[in-house]
Amino acid sequence: MTTTFRIQAILEALQKVTSKQEHFVPLHEPSFQGNEWLYVKECIDTGWVSSVGKYVNKFEEMLADYTGVKHAIAVVNGTAAVHVCLKLAGVEPNDEVLVPALTFIASANAISYCGAIPHFVDSSYETLGLDPVKLDHYLMEISVQRKDGCYNKITGRRIKAVLPMHTFGHPVDMDALLEICDRYKIELVEDAAESLGSYYKGRHTGNWGKLSAVSFNGNKVVTTGGGGAILTNNDELGKMAKHITTTAKKPHPWAFDHDHIGFNYRMPNLNAALGCAQLEMLSKFIEQKRTLANMYANAFLQVDGVKLFMEPSFAKSNYWLQVLMLEEQFASEKEKLLKAANEAGFMTRPVWKPLHEISMYQNCPKMNLDVVGSLARRIINIPSSPGLAR
Amino acid sequence: MTTTFRIQAILEALQKVTSKQEHFVPLHEPSFQGNEWLYVKECIDTGWVSSVGKYVNKFEEMLADYTGVKHAIAVVNGTAAVHVCLKLAGVEPNDEVLVPALTFIASANAISYCGAIPHFVDSSYETLGLDPVKLDHYLMEISVQRKDGCYNKITGRRIKAVLPMHTFGHPVDMDALLEICDRYKIELVEDAAESLGSYYKGRHTGNWGKLSAVSFNGNKVVTTGGGGAILTNNDELGKMAKHITTTAKKPHPWAFDHDHIGFNYRMPNLNAALGCAQLEMLSKFIEQKRTLANMYANAFLQVDGVKLFMEPSFAKSNYWLQVLMLEEQFASEKEKLLKAANEAGFMTRPVWKPLHEISMYQNCPKMNLDVVGSLARRIINIPSSPGLAR
Repeated sequence: MTTTFRIQAILEALQKVTSKQEHFVPLHEPSFQGNEWLYVKECIDTGWVSSVGKYVNKFEEMLADYTGVKHAIAVVNGTAAVHVCLKLAGVEPNDEVLVPALTFIASANAISYCGAIPHFVDSSYETLGLDPVKLDHYLMEISVQRKDGCYNKITGRRIKAVLPMHTFGHPVDMDALLEICDRYKIELVEDAAESLGSYYKGRHTGNWGKLSAVSFNGNKVVTTGGGGAILTNNDELGKMAKHITTTAKKPHPWAFDHDHIGFNYRMPNLNAALGCAQLEMLSKFIEQKRTLANMYANAFLQVDGVKLFMEPSFAKSNYWLQVLMLEEQFASEKEKLLKAANEAGFMTRPVWKPLHEISMYQNCPKMNLDVVGSLARRIINIPSSPGLAR
Repeated sequence: MTTTFRIQAILEALQKVTSKQEHFVPLHEPSFQGNEWLYVKECIDTGWVSSVGKYVNKFEEMLADYTGVKHAIAVVNGTAAVHVCLKLAGVEPNDEVLVPALTFIASANAISYCGAIPHFVDSSYETLGLDPVKLDHYLMEISVQRKDGCYNKITGRRIKAVLPMHTFGHPVDMDALLEICDRYKIELVEDAAESLGSYYKGRHTGNWGKLSAVSFNGNKVVTTGGGGAILTNNDELGKMAKHITTTAKKPHPWAFDHDHIGFNYRMPNLNAALGCAQLEMLSKFIEQKRTLANMYANAFLQVDGVKLFMEPSFAKSNYWLQVLMLEEQFASEKEKLLKAANEAGFMTRPVWKPLHEISMYQNCPKMNLDVVGSLARRIINIPSSPGLAR
């Protein structure tokens, strides 16, 4: 018996799960049904909308509490968070940073802002993220240890850090990766932009790296309009992260002096107020998103040629964006499916174009990227708003 | 008759103007008495709080309309705006950028983000900003023209751009500076972070440079919580500014591709909503701030040793932060005055530490900076909120 690929069957499953009444179901829309207006209104009423205010502190405390990470530093967005994490991990101009080829372009851009070079690594079918086993074999072949760290034998550059990303909220195998980082003397920075509410072996993502980055963009599990955060358990790095994201001004009641080339990356109080209300709802959103995953998984069980991607065995994922995986034999139908689904009012999209295929990054060092190629041909994201769960 | 310096007399003048009832008068507090609630609540109610939404477009249109500049691109803050302006003006790593030593550190930091080197220039007593006459004499001495622009004979580096800043809202002499830029082949980027609502010879600041940067930080004339904007009359640069501040994504209904190493610098819709309501009030705020300047000027007429700094003859200034200027002979009293005023509940502060005295920038090239030195010894900023005017 051969499987067939019927776009109509996929659209029917989408209809069944989303119960679309109106003409359009967005990919991911935020839900503001808690204290959002109360807190935002208080900012406006008191005048504390900007760089100082109680909500920034409260948001950072709530985030540290939720993730179990000692220090959380709120910033303007996830890109800024990754940039500062890499800086504080010691990434310097002309270093290389290992990063999955299958991630949003912000990861590679943040590496570029440091003057460093992205070095692309392959993904695992189990997690959609960095494959530690393949990375280990690759490093064995191309790296050499020197007294100040791991070097790429081919380019002669130092490999300073690795930046795994928990794709669509599904955690990478952190134990395996930590062991590799330790053995090869490579710093671990987690790009947890998509994985707030996701756990690896019971411990929150972003609580494994030396530093980690989270995002609160409008399409994320919870949003601050635009925003991000740096997470770290290291007291000194936490202090420095706050310092250099707030122009590195030396504390003084009125005088101006600065001791680093800092950044203006702090999150405004107005946005943090929205974020506090959103964090209060986070557990509920995660529950809804996990319910939605099960609804989709069941609906697509009946549909040939596709299936819903489910969390790895060691993970509890937030299912930020639901992933529909096409069988390899039907990958050529992807564009047709995207067109049909979007025309039918189900907002769907492919995964990012792999970074080694993007013009600015096509000459960067890379390993064999066969799994990335296969995933990029086969993934589409389907409507994922928590409110769709019933 | 010798003048005397009595701190008590200054505090009395501050009391007279501000009519302080409570224990504290802030340096500059925002005023939200227009449609702030209405617009922000609409964002929350509709879910459009993030990177897409009608308020970003509306804010950009209102700003272009107000300043008379063809294109306005809203970004996360003034620092990001300066960074992108410099990039788009063609500043490259190892270039020098002429910048006043008397400005906020963000100006120099933005130059550093480009990999370029700040080259410090002196200020004028008339404007508090860059002195074009002194700059001309200096460039005559240290620069040489080559086929790709102006070079510093001493360092061998190209001098690609000049970044004047309209200090506390008082415009630099733009005609003189434009003539110099033209003659020496140097790009003009205006740092108009502080000068929204300020005019040079009847034309808005930020409408003179190839590109200009504005800020909407919480302490500015109008605020978006955190925010900034890029202004330009050049269609191509305007388009590119929007493109590279929004990750340089190529337009497509669902696919991801990017053609530059872009930035995640866009202003969230939530912040733009606040900004739209604030821009509606801008003309009123400017009127109030100009009234306040006159109130202070009169009050300090009676006080020996200090006077209020008034706008240059060619300018109509927004008087963003009111400047109290100590006579040189009393400069040594400044710290005592700041301490007494802050203790008495009048929030006051000195001008920024000149950038060539800040550790990271002390080895940068610079001209004679005597006027900056004098101004830095003598300026204090006094409470400047528009609501203080009566």
